Amino acid sequence: MTQLISQNEDTIVALATPPGIGAISIIRISGPNSFSAIDKIFKGKKPISDSASHTIHYGKIYDQDNEPVDDVLISIFRLPNSYTGEDSIEISTHGSPLIVQKIISLLIDQDVRLAEPGEFTKRAFLNGRIDLAQAEAVADVINSNTEASLRGARNQLDGLLSQKVDQLRELLINTSSLIELELDFAEEDLQFMSLKEILSNIDSIESEIDRLLASYSFGRIIKDGVNVALVGKPNVGKSSLLNYLLKEARAIVSEIPGTTRDIIREELNIDGILFRLFDTAGIRTSVDAIEIEGVNRSREAVQNADIVLFLNDATVGFSSDLYEELTGITEKNRILTAVNKIDIKEIHDERFDVGISAKTGDGIETLFEKLKEKAIGTKIYSEKSAIVSNLRHFNSLKKAKYHLESAKKSINERLTGEFISVDLRNAESSLGEIIGKVTSDDILNNIFAKFCIGK
Amino acid sequence: MTQLISQNEDTIVALATPPGIGAISIIRISGPNSFSAIDKIFKGKKPISDSASHTIHYGKIYDQDNEPVDDVLISIFRLPNSYTGEDSIEISTHGSPLIVQKIISLLIDQDVRLAEPGEFTKRAFLNGRIDLAQAEAVADVINSNTEASLRGARNQLDGLLSQKVDQLRELLINTSSLIELELDFAEEDLQFMSLKEILSNIDSIESEIDRLLASYSFGRIIKDGVNVALVGKPNVGKSSLLNYLLKEARAIVSEIPGTTRDIIREELNIDGILFRLFDTAGIRTSVDAIEIEGVNRSREAVQNADIVLFLNDATVGFSSDLYEELTGITEKNRILTAVNKIDIKEIHDERFDVGISAKTGDGIETLFEKLKEKAIGTKIYSEKSAIVSNLRHFNSLKKAKYHLESAKKSINERLTGEFISVDLRNAESSLGEIIGKVTSDDILNNIFAKFCIGK
Repeated sequence: MTQLISQNEDTIVALATPPGIGAISIIRISGPNSFSAIDKIFKGKKPISDSASHTIHYGKIYDQDNEPVDDVLISIFRLPNSYTGEDSIEISTHGSPLIVQKIISLLIDQDVRLAEPGEFTKRAFLNGRIDLAQAEAVADVINSNTEASLRGARNQLDGLLSQKVDQLRELLINTSSLIELELDFAEEDLQFMSLKEILSNIDSIESEIDRLLASYSFGRIIKDGVNVALVGKPNVGKSSLLNYLLKEARAIVSEIPGTTRDIIREELNIDGILFRLFDTAGIRTSVDAIEIEGVNRSREAVQNADIVLFLNDATVGFSSDLYEELTGITEKNRILTAVNKIDIKEIHDERFDVGISAKTGDGIETLFEKLKEKAIGTKIYSEKSAIVSNLRHFNSLKKAKYHLESAKKSINERLTGEFISVDLRNAESSLGEIIGKVTSDDILNNIFAKFCIGK
Repeated sequence: MTQLISQNEDTIVALATPPGIGAISIIRISGPNSFSAIDKIFKGKKPISDSASHTIHYGKIYDQDNEPVDDVLISIFRLPNSYTGEDSIEISTHGSPLIVQKIISLLIDQDVRLAEPGEFTKRAFLNGRIDLAQAEAVADVINSNTEASLRGARNQLDGLLSQKVDQLRELLINTSSLIELELDFAEEDLQFMSLKEILSNIDSIESEIDRLLASYSFGRIIKDGVNVALVGKPNVGKSSLLNYLLKEARAIVSEIPGTTRDIIREELNIDGILFRLFDTAGIRTSVDAIEIEGVNRSREAVQNADIVLFLNDATVGFSSDLYEELTGITEKNRILTAVNKIDIKEIHDERFDVGISAKTGDGIETLFEKLKEKAIGTKIYSEKSAIVSNLRHFNSLKKAKYHLESAKKSINERLTGEFISVDLRNAESSLGEIIGKVTSDDILNNIFAKFCIGK
């Protein structure tokens, strides 16, 4: 591991805590000059360069005129036992933007430069502390806004996906080694028995890839949330339902200061899955020019929705005409058909998935269950199984599957072993992209540019 | 020192870094159960309870279902060597509000409670780590928005004011001891020689208090900034001047991410002193009903201003009538008289303090110097002298001065030593209020309620 640590990089600095006023701010430094730079502006009991890793030191930062800027705590992380794998420092200051700015400026005078977005995590990746899928999970962990998305991101950060990908890569490498070995020794081409074993290996790898690909819609929903279009004729109670749901959501807002997020008016968190509700004005084609714009927007909302919540009125019955129109715009299995006002009239019609009352709250729990079921399907992914939630990973898996299909085709067409071997190597390198074994600078820059500064 | 540490308090927790998303968030715990509470939710190489002070430990926080919540770094501070003087922990987590919320909730399940605003600093004061003037300076340091205000707050935090107050208190205590000693031994009342010495002591203490009282207008301006009303007849170039000044101000905004404050349209930072500019529409009484409101508001701005920047037009000359009106509303020495458009016409009139051109920028540097001079006077307070910037301290000093005057009166009126002694003790206890030697719970609560949570 240690030989991977590169010490040729320059030293970088950034504010690591959220910007603004608070009790404490943390400034992070990483790179070969971390200790020498801090010793030029910090005075404590002894120099930081002489102090042990994972210890904390109280002292003062002084400016160029030897005036104290702040009393600080310095935390020391010696390579390779730091986040980046390099020598690192964390400076804990009073939480004032002015102090943070002064200290960073003083460090920049000491041959330290401002970090790019995500550069600390990029260094952690380049120094072999974490792989690329884990690095991407760092940003997902920070941006998680429901329990489920946090768990998913954490699993990826803990290496669940990486381990699965590594397993499959190893199997691919073994299989292609088998082919290459046989090609070296055998006078003829691959034997029937070898082909059978190769084919069986490919099939088992492919079925694992299929499972990962299938997990993507689940993973994406967990990570990004679910878009729900609320559709119904006038007066079926769309607004009453929305108000009822959002009142429920507001009641569970955190009381812990500094941790409450702004509630977006239309967001609903059901068992850790984020549902975004879109009210639609009307679907039906209209001759009124002013209404046409609204109709177009509603059709668009339905088309983009993961789930269409189709609301009916118990006193009126099932709106067959509107249902017809909906099935013309979206897939049937995306539609969840509900009937409102069951407090006024009992109704039994098997076309309704669920009966509710936006007035009394009856049936709302069942509605939540049905929404959840519709969103993540009946297929249950265990908390501890590898899940794909990132489009880049999904695409790499599709490429790997393509190469495996190509390998099977080569086998069926009785092409020589070299062909099969190339396909397997390609599949392996597609999988390698996920964890960053094979990655271009462009892809790396693209990934880390999306991070915040200081991470 | 150590015997002051109270271990009867409960254990408190709060987010210490600014709220929001970032690379890192810090959760702070303080109190007797800090270590036992963290050990119930954290797993690292060894228990935190068994680890040394000022060391950092990597591990994971687990929730009630034994699911990992986050990987964290735990910093240990054992009493009395912590900010509060109690056993303390800092948890460094990924900078996600959701993670912070979960970890704080888990701690609350372990008999830890949410901290009140300023409670960490209040404990630092109650445990004798800092005095009350220093505690108040902590909030000033965090909220400083210019270099000068930061320096002032830092000096107070470093104990400059506290040391001066302590010196004066000691002198007062010695003087009244002198009186009491003499009263015990002498048959008669105080001797002439003693009275002379006592009077000389009181005079020297009073002159120090006068110096501190005089520093308040300087200290307040450094801390809170200066209000400047911009006054002038139509077309003298008020808007041009404002635009020129604010363009200058914008050019010096920090480039360091996370440290830039929102620029309030009318703020100007001259050598670290904050000037708030108020444009006024017109001063003159008007018969037009609509204008009267504007006139009233302008008069109010002039009355509230620390400085009135009275702008004239070089092509027109000195506006005697407007100057007359201004001197009717505010003191003459608050008015800074400037003449604009010197690029069009040279003008020599000793009633003008400074000539400028808002077009070419000529004279603007001199204007800045004059504004600064007007704001803080010619009296220069050294960087290293004790300055009063807090109204509470100012009032305590005034009370101390009152008691000293009363002591002098008692001496002149030949009252008995007991009277003098009581006056001196009262003066000493008024000074003691500044550093918190004598403070009611109400005053304490009032001071710390203004802090942010987590400090």
